[in-house]
Amino acid sequence: MKRRRRTPTPDLEQAAGAGLMHRRAFIAGAAIAGAVAAEPARAEGLAVEPWMTAPGSPFTGYGQPSRFEAGVARVFANPPNAPGSGAARTPLHRLQGMVTPNGLHFERSHSGVPDIDPDKHRLLIHGLVARPLVFSLETLSRYPMESQIAFIECGGNSAQLYQTEALDADAQRLHGLVSCAEWTGVRLSTLLDEAGVDPTALWVLAEGGDAAGMSRSVPIAKAMGDALVALYQNGERIRPSNGYPMRLLLPGYEGNMQVKWLRRLKLVETPAMTRDETAKYTLLRPDGSALQFVFAMEVKSVITQPSPELSLKEPGLYEISGLAWSGAGRIVKVEVSADGGRSWAEAHLQQPILSKALTRFRLGWRWDGGPAVLQSRATDEEGNVQPTREALLARRGARALYHFNGIASWGVAASGRVTHVYA
Amino acid sequence: MKRRRRTPTPDLEQAAGAGLMHRRAFIAGAAIAGAVAAEPARAEGLAVEPWMTAPGSPFTGYGQPSRFEAGVARVFANPPNAPGSGAARTPLHRLQGMVTPNGLHFERSHSGVPDIDPDKHRLLIHGLVARPLVFSLETLSRYPMESQIAFIECGGNSAQLYQTEALDADAQRLHGLVSCAEWTGVRLSTLLDEAGVDPTALWVLAEGGDAAGMSRSVPIAKAMGDALVALYQNGERIRPSNGYPMRLLLPGYEGNMQVKWLRRLKLVETPAMTRDETAKYTLLRPDGSALQFVFAMEVKSVITQPSPELSLKEPGLYEISGLAWSGAGRIVKVEVSADGGRSWAEAHLQQPILSKALTRFRLGWRWDGGPAVLQSRATDEEGNVQPTREALLARRGARALYHFNGIASWGVAASGRVTHVYA
Repeated sequence: MKRRRRTPTPDLEQAAGAGLMHRRAFIAGAAIAGAVAAEPARAEGLAVEPWMTAPGSPFTGYGQPSRFEAGVARVFANPPNAPGSGAARTPLHRLQGMVTPNGLHFERSHSGVPDIDPDKHRLLIHGLVARPLVFSLETLSRYPMESQIAFIECGGNSAQLYQTEALDADAQRLHGLVSCAEWTGVRLSTLLDEAGVDPTALWVLAEGGDAAGMSRSVPIAKAMGDALVALYQNGERIRPSNGYPMRLLLPGYEGNMQVKWLRRLKLVETPAMTRDETAKYTLLRPDGSALQFVFAMEVKSVITQPSPELSLKEPGLYEISGLAWSGAGRIVKVEVSADGGRSWAEAHLQQPILSKALTRFRLGWRWDGGPAVLQSRATDEEGNVQPTREALLARRGARALYHFNGIASWGVAASGRVTHVYA
Repeated sequence: MKRRRRTPTPDLEQAAGAGLMHRRAFIAGAAIAGAVAAEPARAEGLAVEPWMTAPGSPFTGYGQPSRFEAGVARVFANPPNAPGSGAARTPLHRLQGMVTPNGLHFERSHSGVPDIDPDKHRLLIHGLVARPLVFSLETLSRYPMESQIAFIECGGNSAQLYQTEALDADAQRLHGLVSCAEWTGVRLSTLLDEAGVDPTALWVLAEGGDAAGMSRSVPIAKAMGDALVALYQNGERIRPSNGYPMRLLLPGYEGNMQVKWLRRLKLVETPAMTRDETAKYTLLRPDGSALQFVFAMEVKSVITQPSPELSLKEPGLYEISGLAWSGAGRIVKVEVSADGGRSWAEAHLQQPILSKALTRFRLGWRWDGGPAVLQSRATDEEGNVQPTREALLARRGARALYHFNGIASWGVAASGRVTHVYA
């Protein structure tokens, strides 16, 4: 194959240093026999494999992935003596596109996944309202619905990058607490309007129906804005691990606030100061004070291919691909570097680019076989630019634990092995 | 609840006859206590259900729907002595949004679902090319990828509406051979460019790796256009029932042509006249001739809620919701009638409206408790308007079997029961 590789034309194709290529050049470059990895056909035929010689499996009511994909799964860990507490992470490096399939959406639970009977579940809206109301799943289903394709990211995603040494882990373990789905439900404002919100109500306490009774305070502006009481996830009823039969969806906000198994919304004057907005989900600053109520997830991106566990076998053409998102709105630009941030090339963004959804980016790369450091840097429609890890730590300190959105780096060794590095 | 219903203001809210309402009026209308179905809270508390009193289930690598949703499944039928031949249908009336979850995507198989080892699977491109090529899954994964959110509809979807009597069946059984997913893969044109297509090649024979060796001829313009060799479905590897490890994606075209388990593409001068483009998937016309090679699926829509199995319990406000699509591009308008086509109101279309994808439409409806006939009529960006069943049959005859895109009707009885009717 290598013998047929054409000499590259640097003026036409080079987009930045260390082999980053304009997409058009990459596609044209791929269209040279053997330039990527195709093999010339040795004969006009193909082997007739056993699965072509007998009828396959019959139909099933609910389909599952191939048995050969069993390794594409969430990884999870939970502390001892805390049943169901912890997180299960999305295998970002094994996925493509922007939608996360429901079985692989990340989950963070505080006391396991409750087995809720939807006929018995109720949602109470009370507190500073004219008419306290109770909704069953059936009555909620009568209301006007709407859909939003939205990412959800845990406030603790990428927390390991606050550590002094770069952890030897893959994209799933480092950044897998973010996922994206099409959520459908009823606008929360429709329900609040029906209950009649008192002007003194500035916050909404949202409580989950799990054994932890997980609770967070949501500012009234968000509750009356794009918040949904979501009933469906990628078309079907929300999965138990994501809040069946209903969850709060606060597009762009910290995952922890988007309360799952939603059972109660209380309109209140001041935030409730729950455990998850005081002891947890606050950012400890260098001066010892804690930053509280950091709602929107910041502009961020991560390269998913290549990345650890996806090593490069030989020098040649590759596509660098990853995901970008911002709680502030649309992604307008993602730049990629192959030389640790010395030079940058603009990646191609996959349409449709949606507000507060994952956006897939792609860029061609000709790996010359030498060491390289891959980075991505996202910019959102408000002009927020993903900071370097160094700049983020200088501003925030290393003990913040939450909301890490600094630039992440993958080191590529001459062997083709890809590892997490600080650069 | 009924005692508090406010008298409607017809001038403001009426969008068409028989209670169809402008969306804004419906949302405002819902915001009257009890106007839809909420119950006043009887106390400040809610029952503490058993699932709040003990930790829930631990984490799982791959999540599944709630056990309470077991009834949301594909229904299927296959003829005797033809293992794996038939179709499994998407439960459209149980879903919301535009994405179909992978486990519920419809499937049509001709000899069951093959259990393909991805490491052994190969894709051969040969025939009228300069360089016959063989691709493994791994080599294909090196190429530039792209995603497209696209519907796939079986050419035989809604075929029962060609029958003289309206079949007593639900949206799933009548129209459930259409689904929508985000597909990601390699542009077919990239691979064909690499093989070097001879100018005499006007068709591509696509062959599947199932025991039926299902084969169809694809015109070269489509193969060099938006066609993908798709590897991913809603983020994860394509499910076995949808072509694992790779399928042809021809956005907007008849499902049967989007060959699953794709193993061979042969560039040829003339169509191959395979069984599925001669004995099947042709439209028998009134004069006895058969219309062959009807590629694009026509503009179409179907109301999913309310629909059979989703009966109305009492007069009052409801949301009419459904799906629209066209193989010619974007949906620009969906009109809804509640009086069997005498008057029409324009429905709200959910963003993003994507070319050759399902588009969700919604419209408020105040059911007065009398008999009604619900219909929807879609228009696409090329100006194609979904015809009445009568007009379609007048043009095409009743023996065409495929490509039924006429307006469908749900009859609502005074009892609230919804049934399939001709109107």
